[in-house]
Amino acid sequence: MKIAIDAMGGDNGSKPIVEAVKEFLKEYPDNELVLFGKEEELQEVSSICRIVNAPDLVPMEAGALEVLRLKNSSMCKAISTMKEEGFDAVVSAGSTGGFLSAATLILKTIPGVKRSALVTCFPTKIKGKKIVVLDVGANNENNAEELLQFAYMGRAYNQALFATKEPKTYLLSNGAEAHKGSPLVKEAHQLLLDNKFEGFMGNMEARDVLNGDADILVADGFSGNVLLKGMEGIAKMMSGMIKANFKQNLWTKLGYLHVRKGFKNMSETMDYKSTGGAMLLGINGVVVKAHGNSDAYSFKSALKVAKQMVDFDVVNKIKESLKNE
Amino acid sequence: MKIAIDAMGGDNGSKPIVEAVKEFLKEYPDNELVLFGKEEELQEVSSICRIVNAPDLVPMEAGALEVLRLKNSSMCKAISTMKEEGFDAVVSAGSTGGFLSAATLILKTIPGVKRSALVTCFPTKIKGKKIVVLDVGANNENNAEELLQFAYMGRAYNQALFATKEPKTYLLSNGAEAHKGSPLVKEAHQLLLDNKFEGFMGNMEARDVLNGDADILVADGFSGNVLLKGMEGIAKMMSGMIKANFKQNLWTKLGYLHVRKGFKNMSETMDYKSTGGAMLLGINGVVVKAHGNSDAYSFKSALKVAKQMVDFDVVNKIKESLKNE
Repeated sequence: MKIAIDAMGGDNGSKPIVEAVKEFLKEYPDNELVLFGKEEELQEVSSICRIVNAPDLVPMEAGALEVLRLKNSSMCKAISTMKEEGFDAVVSAGSTGGFLSAATLILKTIPGVKRSALVTCFPTKIKGKKIVVLDVGANNENNAEELLQFAYMGRAYNQALFATKEPKTYLLSNGAEAHKGSPLVKEAHQLLLDNKFEGFMGNMEARDVLNGDADILVADGFSGNVLLKGMEGIAKMMSGMIKANFKQNLWTKLGYLHVRKGFKNMSETMDYKSTGGAMLLGINGVVVKAHGNSDAYSFKSALKVAKQMVDFDVVNKIKESLKNE
Repeated sequence: MKIAIDAMGGDNGSKPIVEAVKEFLKEYPDNELVLFGKEEELQEVSSICRIVNAPDLVPMEAGALEVLRLKNSSMCKAISTMKEEGFDAVVSAGSTGGFLSAATLILKTIPGVKRSALVTCFPTKIKGKKIVVLDVGANNENNAEELLQFAYMGRAYNQALFATKEPKTYLLSNGAEAHKGSPLVKEAHQLLLDNKFEGFMGNMEARDVLNGDADILVADGFSGNVLLKGMEGIAKMMSGMIKANFKQNLWTKLGYLHVRKGFKNMSETMDYKSTGGAMLLGINGVVVKAHGNSDAYSFKSALKVAKQMVDFDVVNKIKESLKNE
C-alpha cells in the first residue's frame, strides 16, 4: 500500500506529521508512505520513507485553483503524484476547500457519481458505537438524487469501518415523521423508498443523532455542516466549563481526583481527534482530510482511516453499490 | 394585560401549568390570565383567574386543521378567544406544528410579513449573554427575502428582551467568509448588504454561535432547527455522562460535593428551561410556545417571555421595522 502525505498542510507544521508517520510505521511496517514537503524538515524519517521536495505552502483558505497553481506545494504535488504513480491514498491536514476540490479535479469522481461527499463519524450514547454522517460539508447544496447516492456511499463506508450487520440509515430532518421535512428531504425520502434502499429507517431529528439508533445519517452538505460544527461548538463550550469547574480552588481540584477516570473516558469519547478527520467519498482514490489542528495522535488516526479504506477497497465497493442503484 | 393560556397542552397535563400561573401572579399581580382547559382540573386557581371550559385535548402530533376542527380543545379555544376578545398574548405547551399553524391561520401574519419565524435564545460563553436565533423550525424552507425579514424581526426581539446597544447580526453558514455558503445564504447576504442592514456582520459557522460575538443569528427554518436540536442532543448526552461520572461510587459522590456549585451553575446556563420556550414572530399578537415537557418553572418563564413581549410592544416594533425595509 502506498500513501501520499501532505507533510506541511496542518496548522502545526510538519513536526506532528513526522511524529505520526514514525508511529504509524512502527505499527504497520509493511506500508509505504511518501512524504511531500520541505526536504530539510523531513530528514528525520528519510530512512523509512520516500521524501519528495515540495517546499511551497498552500494558504489555509486557498481554493482549488490556487492549489493547482502552486505546483510545487506539498498539497498539489501529493495529489498529482498519487495520480501519476497510482498510489492508493492521499492524506492532508491543509485547507479543506482547496484539498477537496483539487483532489476532485485531479483524481476525478467515480463514473456515475454526481457529487462527492465528506464523511465523518460521531460518537453515540452507546459505548464504542459510532454513527457515520455525510455530507458534512463538501457541498453547498444537494438534490435528492445526490442524497440517494450519499446513502449508498455511507453504507459502503460503514461496512468498511465497522462491518455493522444490517446497518440502519436515516435522513436528517426537522421531524421524525415521514411527511415532515424540507422539500428536498421529502423527495429524497421517497427516492430511498422507491429504490427499496436496504435498512432505510426514515427521518431523524438532529437531537436523536447521538442516541445510537442510527448507523448512517444522510444530510445535504449545508445542514450536515451545521450539525457537525454546532455539536463541536457546544461540546467545546461544555468541556471548557467542566475544566473551569475543577480548576477553581484546592477543594475543586481535590474533587477532580475522585472522578478523574470518568471524565477522562468522557473526553476521549467526545474527542473528534480519535476519529482521524474525514474522508472524501465518491472520488477515484482514497482521499482523507485530517483536522487542520491535528497533533501526532490525530494525524496517525487519519493515516489509519486511509489504510482501512484501502484495505477494505472502499472505492470499488462504492462502484459496485452504485451499480445496483 | 390579558394572556390566554392553553392549560392542557403539555406532556405533563395541567398541574405544572396551574403551579406556574400561581407563581406568575404572585410576582405580577396586575396581569390577567385566562385559562383554557378542563374546568374541574383548574379549580385551584378559579379565584385568581378566569377559567374557560375547553375539555378536548389536542394530540401532540396534531396539525393546524386538526386543531381548528377541535373547537372545544384548550388550544383552539385559547387562540380563537384571544382573537375575538382582543387579548395580548397566547401561550401553549402543546403540539408545536398544530399550535404555530393554527395561531397563524386564526391571528394572521402582520401585513407585509412573508413568513413567521420561531425564535429562541441560546446561552453563550459570556456569562449572562444570550444569542437570539431564528428561524428554529416554523418553516421547512425559506427564500432570501424571508431571511432578510427574519433579521429585522430578530433585531426587534433582541431589543425587546435585552435592549442590546448596537446588536450584531450574523447569517448561519458553512463558512465565515462572505463568498461561502449555500446559494440561499449568498443571496441573503447580498440582500442584507443592499439594505444596509444595521449591525450586519456577515456569515457565521455553527461552531462559533455560542462564543458570544453575535446577538442575533439568522437561519432558514430547516438549518436553524438542525442547529437547535443538534446542540440540545449533545448537551443532553454530555450532561448524562457528567451525572453518571459522579454517581459511580462513594468516592465519586464525595468528589461531587467539592464541585457541586460549579456544576449547578453550568446546568443552569445550559438549561433550555430558563429560556421559556420559543416565540412565533411575525404574527398579529404575541404567540409563545412553551416546551412540551415544561415543568412549572419552565412554563412560568414562558409566561414571562409573553409578558415582556407585550410590555415592549414587539408586534408594533416589528411592524415599524419592516416599514424601513
